[in-house]
Amino acid sequence: MRPFKLVSRDYKAEDTVIKIEGPGRPVFVGQGYCTNIAGSCAVESPEQYLELAQILKASGANMLRGGLFKPRTSPYSFQGMGREGLQILDEARRITGLPVVTEIMDLHDIDCLYDHVDVFQVGSRNMQNYSLLDALGRVNKPVLLKRGLSATIEEWLLAAEYLLSGGNWQVILCERGIRTFETYTRNTVDIGAVVMAKELSHLPVIVDPSHATGKWRMVTPVAAAAIAAGADGLMVEVHQDPDRALSDGKQSLTPENYLQLLSRIEAIAQLQNKLIQH
Amino acid sequence: MRPFKLVSRDYKAEDTVIKIEGPGRPVFVGQGYCTNIAGSCAVESPEQYLELAQILKASGANMLRGGLFKPRTSPYSFQGMGREGLQILDEARRITGLPVVTEIMDLHDIDCLYDHVDVFQVGSRNMQNYSLLDALGRVNKPVLLKRGLSATIEEWLLAAEYLLSGGNWQVILCERGIRTFETYTRNTVDIGAVVMAKELSHLPVIVDPSHATGKWRMVTPVAAAAIAAGADGLMVEVHQDPDRALSDGKQSLTPENYLQLLSRIEAIAQLQNKLIQH
Amino acid sequence: MRPFKLVSRDYKAEDTVIKIEGPGRPVFVGQGYCTNIAGSCAVESPEQYLELAQILKASGANMLRGGLFKPRTSPYSFQGMGREGLQILDEARRITGLPVVTEIMDLHDIDCLYDHVDVFQVGSRNMQNYSLLDALGRVNKPVLLKRGLSATIEEWLLAAEYLLSGGNWQVILCERGIRTFETYTRNTVDIGAVVMAKELSHLPVIVDPSHATGKWRMVTPVAAAAIAAGADGLMVEVHQDPDRALSDGKQSLTPENYLQLLSRIEAIAQLQNKLIQH
Amino acid sequence: MRPFKLVSRDYKAEDTVIKIEGPGRPVFVGQGYCTNIAGSCAVESPEQYLELAQILKASGANMLRGGLFKPRTSPYSFQGMGREGLQILDEARRITGLPVVTEIMDLHDIDCLYDHVDVFQVGSRNMQNYSLLDALGRVNKPVLLKRGLSATIEEWLLAAEYLLSGGNWQVILCERGIRTFETYTRNTVDIGAVVMAKELSHLPVIVDPSHATGKWRMVTPVAAAAIAAGADGLMVEVHQDPDRALSDGKQSLTPENYLQLLSRIEAIAQLQNKLIQH
Repeated sequence: MRPFKLVSRDYKAEDTVIKIEGPGRPVFVGQGYCTNIAGSCAVESPEQYLELAQILKASGANMLRGGLFKPRTSPYSFQGMGREGLQILDEARRITGLPVVTEIMDLHDIDCLYDHVDVFQVGSRNMQNYSLLDALGRVNKPVLLKRGLSATIEEWLLAAEYLLSGGNWQVILCERGIRTFETYTRNTVDIGAVVMAKELSHLPVIVDPSHATGKWRMVTPVAAAAIAAGADGLMVEVHQDPDRALSDGKQSLTPENYLQLLSRIEAIAQLQNKLIQH
Repeated sequence: MRPFKLVSRDYKAEDTVIKIEGPGRPVFVGQGYCTNIAGSCAVESPEQYLELAQILKASGANMLRGGLFKPRTSPYSFQGMGREGLQILDEARRITGLPVVTEIMDLHDIDCLYDHVDVFQVGSRNMQNYSLLDALGRVNKPVLLKRGLSATIEEWLLAAEYLLSGGNWQVILCERGIRTFETYTRNTVDIGAVVMAKELSHLPVIVDPSHATGKWRMVTPVAAAAIAAGADGLMVEVHQDPDRALSDGKQSLTPENYLQLLSRIEAIAQLQNKLIQH
Repeated sequence: MRPFKLVSRDYKAEDTVIKIEGPGRPVFVGQGYCTNIAGSCAVESPEQYLELAQILKASGANMLRGGLFKPRTSPYSFQGMGREGLQILDEARRITGLPVVTEIMDLHDIDCLYDHVDVFQVGSRNMQNYSLLDALGRVNKPVLLKRGLSATIEEWLLAAEYLLSGGNWQVILCERGIRTFETYTRNTVDIGAVVMAKELSHLPVIVDPSHATGKWRMVTPVAAAAIAAGADGLMVEVHQDPDRALSDGKQSLTPENYLQLLSRIEAIAQLQNKLIQH
Repeated sequence: MRPFKLVSRDYKAEDTVIKIEGPGRPVFVGQGYCTNIAGSCAVESPEQYLELAQILKASGANMLRGGLFKPRTSPYSFQGMGREGLQILDEARRITGLPVVTEIMDLHDIDCLYDHVDVFQVGSRNMQNYSLLDALGRVNKPVLLKRGLSATIEEWLLAAEYLLSGGNWQVILCERGIRTFETYTRNTVDIGAVVMAKELSHLPVIVDPSHATGKWRMVTPVAAAAIAAGADGLMVEVHQDPDRALSDGKQSLTPENYLQLLSRIEAIAQLQNKLIQH
């Protein structure tokens, strides 16, 4: 028997659809929808991020991503703008009407971020940060829970179980690649985990093909694979000038590439009877 | 610099399309085609295999798979019919007109198998059996080269390089899942490797979603993902009665499920401008 | 070039030896010493823990381990006594004179734990919890940093770099097994990582053979291997009654087994010119 | 229940000790002995190999390793001297009196090699080459069976089961590192697998620290760990001039380093009551 309960289809058979109440029209994530989240890895400056946000809105993205607190392997790498970037997120929401998802690394930032973001992201390194999960389980705001780099599907669903058992059922699972022996790709996107997670759980599952592959040329085909396999959406890194991005430039699409991705995805989503939200 | 040469797009930019001259109309594998290979894991008896072959032909499969020599982890498991099954393969080819692919485990079986099979399969356990690769490099017959369970993309392409450098350019690469820490699925299908292999090499790449997942319910969504990512075809396990299959029953589709798979695949293949061969 | 600086032998060639000022005589960790840390996975009750502490003191252990906050994969598992257990740790320190190491999961517990523990442990799931590392970098107390389940040696040393660059040079590295495909053992203890970490860094490296193997019968031989490879000490789970332990009973030694471990270790430590501290 | 039978301690409780009848005094592998196998990766020339053989004999090695058929990832790498090297092995055996182990890649080489070698080695890439295992199961000569790069302990023991069930009980298991995500070391030596294999099976288990680490500086500490964990011996790569070795130079010890290794090993072997054979 599986060790998880509330996240399981045995507990709740019908799909959970999450309604994200952002600054504009609500955005839905879950069965029947294909949700497109896009943005640069980090919020770099007002000029950079607001220009990008408008491009993405015009392209058809449904939600913006933008990191203020960046978990970086080295203490000497750019660590994000921190709280100084909150006004930029506010402004991006205002001018686009799109909701925003941003990563939270410390439970004590919940209050400070609460009024500025629409979805809290728990990054892969914090998937088993149970203090953080406990706190987010008591919050009335959707959580996007990335799978840990070496987390099993079971551990991923149990991390979600921390949130649901705490009272927060607005959870979006995000597959972002696992760590394997392969070195040609940054990580190995686990398409089977998308299928399995959707079979085992009623929660929506999206895919981040940018972190999973680490190479922008692979992002669109892997995104197409994700939607074809049944994923409920995508979170993609886009940057106006990937070569000058402060982080993750190699895996970022240009706005032009992102338009091509959306067009390829839309056709597959239609085959799956998934609605693209414009 | 990459260590492979002849398999590289730097050496040959245009896609290699392999023409398989079987008992009936030729079958193509490579750019512009979506090739469907299907069959039971093992040839179990004349009745079982010939009935299945006719069902698959009627379903729209382009090539039959059927193992006579089964590499089994335990010496006490069913090891395949061996040479006694050759007449069954002959008969299956005759009544369906479809070419046949079968696994070869020992280079000294090449002569005996040569007139009965259309494609030699090198299984994942033998991907680095260089004696076998050397011998198949000198043969004028296509080879389907499965990626080893823990082979890097580089090692896989270098194994193909053994074949090409020996003189045999008719090589089909087959991704079949890699070994990772995840235990809910039998193996982890590496969709990124399909994208990467096609970028690095001119050789066709197909996917075996049956071995990759180990669960029949996952086969169709993973097959859809493979074609959406750009794979040139699929090799799928089908059995009339999966519960009684002598091997791999859990991952085998019924003929009805296979028809559903083909219908889902066909729509995606059309989006990719890939021709389904009937 | 390696991306870490302060942890590197290029920056500081001589071995760092950490002096732990506990309630009794100081305990040393690093070159020239073999340090034995032992205790139950969790502090379960005053009776359980204080009895065990006295047994371990009498056995020759140099430091006690005892978890109050237990990171558990499932929200339904025993989560530890929490702050209620602090008095038990105080008492254990008082009656044995041994320093205590306990895991910290939330940076906001630093103040509360500070006067009750001698070494802060960062668990494998939190190895890349950078908020926690930042905070512990500003603390004047040794930190035992466990390697993450799928952390590379480089990422492990970079996590230590967060501590050193924050100002805290009292860091003990702890190898506790990595996640691989093998399922007969809980994790795969990476002996080569011990050798490599000691070559690359001046920091002491110890091994936790209990978590690494998950099976008590394997603990002593793996512990012997660790010391033979050059590890500076061991952290071992011991319980008076492993069958009734609230967590990790399967990998816990009985006090009798622990005495045998210490006797086998001592002989190997002598060959390495490492001092057992009594 | 475990799927293996004849290799299991349930079938045969007492340790199997293998007597290798070489050109001189017999050499034993198994409980009570610590057996040292050494040599260059490949036999490169008569001058190179015979000089090395004499040095190793004088150092105290018990058996020589020397590859004639080298399984190489790339078809463009040195593939070994092949059958031309057989006379060199003959001569090395004659002048040293030591038995020789060499890798066999093709079952059809058994006859040709039979009178020139004392132990057949099955390499990690061929651990599941069942045609080869079947053939070696019918031979009256010891087999050294390396664990596959990504083989589980269960698969490794089942590969040995092929040999025993074929009639050949003279099997030496050899752990040589598994493939993981870590890139600082070539492979990850699995010390726990040594402990586990000896607990589950009566067969002797040795360790190859050279291939496992890929770095000569790590070979001696990992070798010490292996013996401390209970391994029955070591297979080590030694070369007179590692910088000029035709293969695996980076992981080869010089003869001086090998003497240091033997001296460090001997002390640990004595603690384990294992006899060094001179």
